[in-house]
Amino acid sequence: MSSRESWAYLSRVVEGPSKHLSELLNKGHAAAEIAEGVRRRESWIGPLLGETESRYSWDRAQEDLEQIAALGGRLITREDAEWPEAAFSQAFGFAASGVSEHLRTYRSDAVEPHALWVRGAPLAPLLAQSVAVVGTRAQSRYGVEVTRQLVAGLVAHQWTVVSGGALGIDTEAHRTALDQGGATVMVAACGLDHSYPARNGALFERIAEQGSVVSEYPPGVTPQRHRFLTRNRLVAAMTGGTVIVEAAWRSGALNTLSWASALGKVAMAVPGPVTSANSLGCHERIRDGRAQLVTGSDDVRELLGALGEVDVAAQYELMYAGTPVQQLSHNELKIFDCLEPDAEVETEVVAAAAGLPLALTVHLLVDLSKRGLVRRSGTSWARGESA
Amino acid sequence: MSSRESWAYLSRVVEGPSKHLSELLNKGHAAAEIAEGVRRRESWIGPLLGETESRYSWDRAQEDLEQIAALGGRLITREDAEWPEAAFSQAFGFAASGVSEHLRTYRSDAVEPHALWVRGAPLAPLLAQSVAVVGTRAQSRYGVEVTRQLVAGLVAHQWTVVSGGALGIDTEAHRTALDQGGATVMVAACGLDHSYPARNGALFERIAEQGSVVSEYPPGVTPQRHRFLTRNRLVAAMTGGTVIVEAAWRSGALNTLSWASALGKVAMAVPGPVTSANSLGCHERIRDGRAQLVTGSDDVRELLGALGEVDVAAQYELMYAGTPVQQLSHNELKIFDCLEPDAEVETEVVAAAAGLPLALTVHLLVDLSKRGLVRRSGTSWARGESA
Repeated sequence: MSSRESWAYLSRVVEGPSKHLSELLNKGHAAAEIAEGVRRRESWIGPLLGETESRYSWDRAQEDLEQIAALGGRLITREDAEWPEAAFSQAFGFAASGVSEHLRTYRSDAVEPHALWVRGAPLAPLLAQSVAVVGTRAQSRYGVEVTRQLVAGLVAHQWTVVSGGALGIDTEAHRTALDQGGATVMVAACGLDHSYPARNGALFERIAEQGSVVSEYPPGVTPQRHRFLTRNRLVAAMTGGTVIVEAAWRSGALNTLSWASALGKVAMAVPGPVTSANSLGCHERIRDGRAQLVTGSDDVRELLGALGEVDVAAQYELMYAGTPVQQLSHNELKIFDCLEPDAEVETEVVAAAAGLPLALTVHLLVDLSKRGLVRRSGTSWARGESA
Repeated sequence: MSSRESWAYLSRVVEGPSKHLSELLNKGHAAAEIAEGVRRRESWIGPLLGETESRYSWDRAQEDLEQIAALGGRLITREDAEWPEAAFSQAFGFAASGVSEHLRTYRSDAVEPHALWVRGAPLAPLLAQSVAVVGTRAQSRYGVEVTRQLVAGLVAHQWTVVSGGALGIDTEAHRTALDQGGATVMVAACGLDHSYPARNGALFERIAEQGSVVSEYPPGVTPQRHRFLTRNRLVAAMTGGTVIVEAAWRSGALNTLSWASALGKVAMAVPGPVTSANSLGCHERIRDGRAQLVTGSDDVRELLGALGEVDVAAQYELMYAGTPVQQLSHNELKIFDCLEPDAEVETEVVAAAAGLPLALTVHLLVDLSKRGLVRRSGTSWARGESA
């Protein structure tokens, strides 16, 4: 049995994530050695014995590898160059010391996958600059519009989008990335021989050509609720951060967002109309400080990018620069507001109207006249050309 | 000259806020004594001498008091029972030790008003439970809808709404409060003989009847830009917190929100579509952690109310209670997802399909059957009635 076959066998009989398998691998045991231990029911594999008790006889490694090859795919593990080692070790290293509320329920899942079935481009380079974009299956027009803007902006800056394969926001995110010529990664909750949901079959083919389709499960494994939850951890773990676009109160997208926090990634949410139940989950997370508010791709890049790479506030300052009058100080404004464009007012009258001492009034009038906001005529003043 | 006339005189010749006048009052000097000092240009009044240099001769106290009386109003000061002493001393006490960015520009304004011109109900009781609702003059349909919902919810719980008199969100807030039979307070940036904007004249009359119209300025003082900024501090100071509903990048409402923070009040913002420039300012403040995200009156009441009075998260939990299946643990879900409503599955097959040890599988199946989610038939299992 080759090393690859051993990994395939383990992927089949140990449904990830498995803390016990990870521990054996981290102790330096080769996959082939562990696979033998599982198959022969050897006691040194410890708790993995119980974990594989009901499945160890499912020995279909060769068929599984043939099947993924027939789909144009492959099985990858920590031994392959394309394994997203950096993202995973950061994520699960963080979780090991993490104390998030989410981990109270899901700690046993906070474990690196031991193998991934992949169709498409090599994973690690794809994920080097990546962000998860997820959301409700029951998207609104607003959700679609925001997803398109967000993803188009990310793709324009060479960010890879990662998402599940669900209808709604996930589908919209993938489709936009593809349409914009960008890369996208879909993480499935079932074997790659399935298309779930079925109507996304053609989309998944496009993703496999232009990005990658990934699953922790060998061919034939069906999509089940617990696998969606487990898949969510992978979406969060692979990326620098997760954005939820629209999420109702109990949306699965919130689970992905919780994973992002639990794995030390940046959790982000797009706000929306408070009159829409579709934004309830987003608002709740922002409200509680469990997600950063983002309004578009610039915000996301600012949060995930190198320090100083994007400065959204500065961009807005530029876009919405104040007029010279808006930039006046409070006392300058008191003076300026007492003047008219066409009528000339004596200095003493300006001082009284502004309620400022005469000397200060003169000082400020002269200063304003240098900026063209005020013009002088003897001892009288009016608004200037630039006002 | 009566004490009231002295206050009126000071209100006319010292445009609030005046740190120097406040200091003299706080040292225990009576208004009449200070007014005499100003009028006679006595040196003991210190810097107030310079401050009143161009206006001290404007001696119209009696006319001003007559004019406000003719309008059905009055002048109130710290000597009156209706003076909102608690709100002001909290606010300006906080500011005195405050270090907010806002105070770098506006510290000289972070001073209690020395007198207020009022038409309507006594101020202190009105403000005992109050919140400022402000926003853009160029409101969207969304902004109007949100303002109406927010204010109706506040009024239903006997909260007084405070706002400026501008068109847009401020007007909508007052109108909704009045229509709902609630109390509302309008803080003007000019003398109460003016209606600014003019088209709100009828609205202000309704407010004076059902709530109160307030100004720091004596009759005849015109609305000017710097007075809007100064007025904003009063709106923030009078209330427990300020909510901005819609605010573009340079909206004046953001100035009120900054005042709320600088005065130790709760700063709140309603999110909206990220595709609307009208919500830019709201999102920016939430993003920067300078405002709490609120989605409606319950959020506002939770933030401002007595601890535990409102628990929005608990309300949502109740509104969107999970189904028994949604409440299953991860391992329970693995088991449950392997079962069918109509077909019976042997225990060993369930264990293998779920990838769990046999003993754990049996334990969980028995547990699920107690909750009616699973039913047993010999050594086989199917989904139960409650599933």
